[in-house]
Amino acid sequence: MDLLSITDLSRDDIMGIINRALEFKKMKKQPQILDGKFIVTAFFEPSTRTKLSFHRAIKGLGGKVIDFIASVSAIQKGETDIDTLLTLEAMDIDAFVVRVRRNGAPMEWKNYVKVPIINGGDGTNQHPTQALLDLTTMYEHFGRLDLKVAIVGDILHSRVANSLTQGLLMFGGKVRFCGPKEFVPARYDGVELITDSLEEALDGVDVVYALRVQKERIEKLPINIDEFFRRYQINHKTIKMAPEHAVLMHPGPFNRNIEVSDNIVYSERSLILQQVKNGVYSRMAVLERVVGS
Amino acid sequence: MDLLSITDLSRDDIMGIINRALEFKKMKKQPQILDGKFIVTAFFEPSTRTKLSFHRAIKGLGGKVIDFIASVSAIQKGETDIDTLLTLEAMDIDAFVVRVRRNGAPMEWKNYVKVPIINGGDGTNQHPTQALLDLTTMYEHFGRLDLKVAIVGDILHSRVANSLTQGLLMFGGKVRFCGPKEFVPARYDGVELITDSLEEALDGVDVVYALRVQKERIEKLPINIDEFFRRYQINHKTIKMAPEHAVLMHPGPFNRNIEVSDNIVYSERSLILQQVKNGVYSRMAVLERVVGS
Amino acid sequence: MDLLSITDLSRDDIMGIINRALEFKKMKKQPQILDGKFIVTAFFEPSTRTKLSFHRAIKGLGGKVIDFIASVSAIQKGETDIDTLLTLEAMDIDAFVVRVRRNGAPMEWKNYVKVPIINGGDGTNQHPTQALLDLTTMYEHFGRLDLKVAIVGDILHSRVANSLTQGLLMFGGKVRFCGPKEFVPARYDGVELITDSLEEALDGVDVVYALRVQKERIEKLPINIDEFFRRYQINHKTIKMAPEHAVLMHPGPFNRNIEVSDNIVYSERSLILQQVKNGVYSRMAVLERVVGS
Repeated sequence: MDLLSITDLSRDDIMGIINRALEFKKMKKQPQILDGKFIVTAFFEPSTRTKLSFHRAIKGLGGKVIDFIASVSAIQKGETDIDTLLTLEAMDIDAFVVRVRRNGAPMEWKNYVKVPIINGGDGTNQHPTQALLDLTTMYEHFGRLDLKVAIVGDILHSRVANSLTQGLLMFGGKVRFCGPKEFVPARYDGVELITDSLEEALDGVDVVYALRVQKERIEKLPINIDEFFRRYQINHKTIKMAPEHAVLMHPGPFNRNIEVSDNIVYSERSLILQQVKNGVYSRMAVLERVVGS
Repeated sequence: MDLLSITDLSRDDIMGIINRALEFKKMKKQPQILDGKFIVTAFFEPSTRTKLSFHRAIKGLGGKVIDFIASVSAIQKGETDIDTLLTLEAMDIDAFVVRVRRNGAPMEWKNYVKVPIINGGDGTNQHPTQALLDLTTMYEHFGRLDLKVAIVGDILHSRVANSLTQGLLMFGGKVRFCGPKEFVPARYDGVELITDSLEEALDGVDVVYALRVQKERIEKLPINIDEFFRRYQINHKTIKMAPEHAVLMHPGPFNRNIEVSDNIVYSERSLILQQVKNGVYSRMAVLERVVGS
Repeated sequence: MDLLSITDLSRDDIMGIINRALEFKKMKKQPQILDGKFIVTAFFEPSTRTKLSFHRAIKGLGGKVIDFIASVSAIQKGETDIDTLLTLEAMDIDAFVVRVRRNGAPMEWKNYVKVPIINGGDGTNQHPTQALLDLTTMYEHFGRLDLKVAIVGDILHSRVANSLTQGLLMFGGKVRFCGPKEFVPARYDGVELITDSLEEALDGVDVVYALRVQKERIEKLPINIDEFFRRYQINHKTIKMAPEHAVLMHPGPFNRNIEVSDNIVYSERSLILQQVKNGVYSRMAVLERVVGS
């Protein structure tokens, strides 16, 4: 069993993972379900946050990590991705966690690789474990998932936005996209609002979900950077457009004082560090499901 | 006890390692022989395949890895190799696995280092664990080692060819070298044929052993690259020069469509992934012998 | 409980760590005090020696390591140090070991981070575990710490010199600084002698503690490099300025034939490798104190 896309999972699957994640979170020591198992983390694109979260989860369940680091590898000698994976698989390992720049690569690799693959992010396409940790965090906070969520920022280039939106829609969530028109798709099935007005997007929401925005991309916009900040940065002023009960989320790593202000990220309204924490436990739940089965 | 060169081992030693490797391979979980042991992997030359295979083997036997990464180390601050090893040894570790560019360096280091050293490849000289995994794979497939083996490619620059040839000759194997004359030695004790004709080399063999060839080296040959492919690439056409029972082996990482064709590497005749798998288990057998004793 | 500076510890604390380190050193297998614990090594400045010593110590006590490598991390994406640490802390880890270029950074981080921080070296400020391993080595050799110690080299830029001096002074040690005036402070509370004469500095000492000297810094001195060697290099000739019972120490990595001669570093008078060995065990004692409590 793999986890390539959030849409591989049913509502029941997702609720099972969320509940199991919250169980794991409460335990002082988790059961050593992965004892004797070897998980390869193969991040063809650098990522510390997601990789170390997986390492923490794997080791917390008693599993062993084989960390393939692309930059010092045979890839530099001309080996293809799939040859690398088949070679690593031949070392009698139990699953892969992959990260890759090319959209859809993990889905292609499944035609060749027999052990389970967990997609740790492919290009602008999918990041299912991020969606699961986000849903876990929302469910933990609100006790339900049919929430109103405004996703703000560079949505077009975001696998996080894509996976999260698909997940929320499965549970009857209302999703809104907000950003300059260069950053949002013209349309997206099931999304109730696509707008360049933050005020409109944040009206009545439960969650303000800010995305990381690359400064270089802002600089290419027709508006100047100060106007971008004024219109789209989430800070103590702009968050007042949302109801008082609304929370701030962000997948990290964030750019302080770009898409979010310095002083709001660790404020009481922010669930950002809870997302990181739940990342460990929802990945444990995914690993149990994918490798334990 | 060290493993610096394949010639450190007797026939009995090698057969012991092969049989133990095949035993380890059958076990669902290997005995935790290395519990409480610390093995340092010190790869002064980058290598993913060999290093991760050792990590898999060490951890599979319950040992712990200390991974010394040269590129971010004190070496950049001017420390010599031997000072690095003596420093790591002083941390109360149980063995080294080393990889280094300079021929003979591990043999020199033995004058200073007290814990066992396993040579994971030194320059163009020795790669004994590669030879052991190759012999294990041949023995597993054929049930014997007095085989006819054609090694094809850049033999002059290959520690793999050197160690494997020495190993095969100990068991009465018949070894042939094949490549353009710039790639083969003028003579080599015990080798029955050194030729630039693939047809001649593959006639009647049991194993076609293709070596990785660097494109830059091909480009320096007097023949052009298309002629190189036509004359030396192992593909579905050229492998017909060998008997039907002959198998293809390669130490990896391979260059698709350079020394081997894309479609032959994972064909039924190819033992390439079996080599990788047996690499883990023959390294376990080596570790047991070197560290367990 | 943290370990940010050697001055965080009382004399009793230090003697407790030294005695426990020497106990750990005698054990064939140390108690698995860190079972189920996760320690993050976050070295924002590269260091192999200190990091691997901590890895050895953590794993030797049964703990698990999460190794944050700054160069391939979100830091390159603009994340600040403190955001990185808060993110890692949110992954439910038990302590940090940090190394950083900026003086005082670990002390600042303590205002944000709740889990213990062990300072693995900040700029030219503090390196408390180095001081502890040095004191352990001196105590093991001499049975007391009210020793006469000459520190020779680039003292101004050395956190090692700073922490060690503070530690020795707590035990009534007599500390002398020696180097060209560009390398030594004009004054330092409690230090009995600051001199540019090696002969004067080494007269009657128990320990000659040589510091690593960067060649580029020597080249900026008004004296030429040969004169630097003649006046400050510790070698078989210059060490005769010290009594026969005096020992040589160095924090490593050393520059052979710069601040110390090639042939003296592994001589009988040298405790350099004992320092490395005691580094593992004094770090175990620190980890037990910091994380076990």
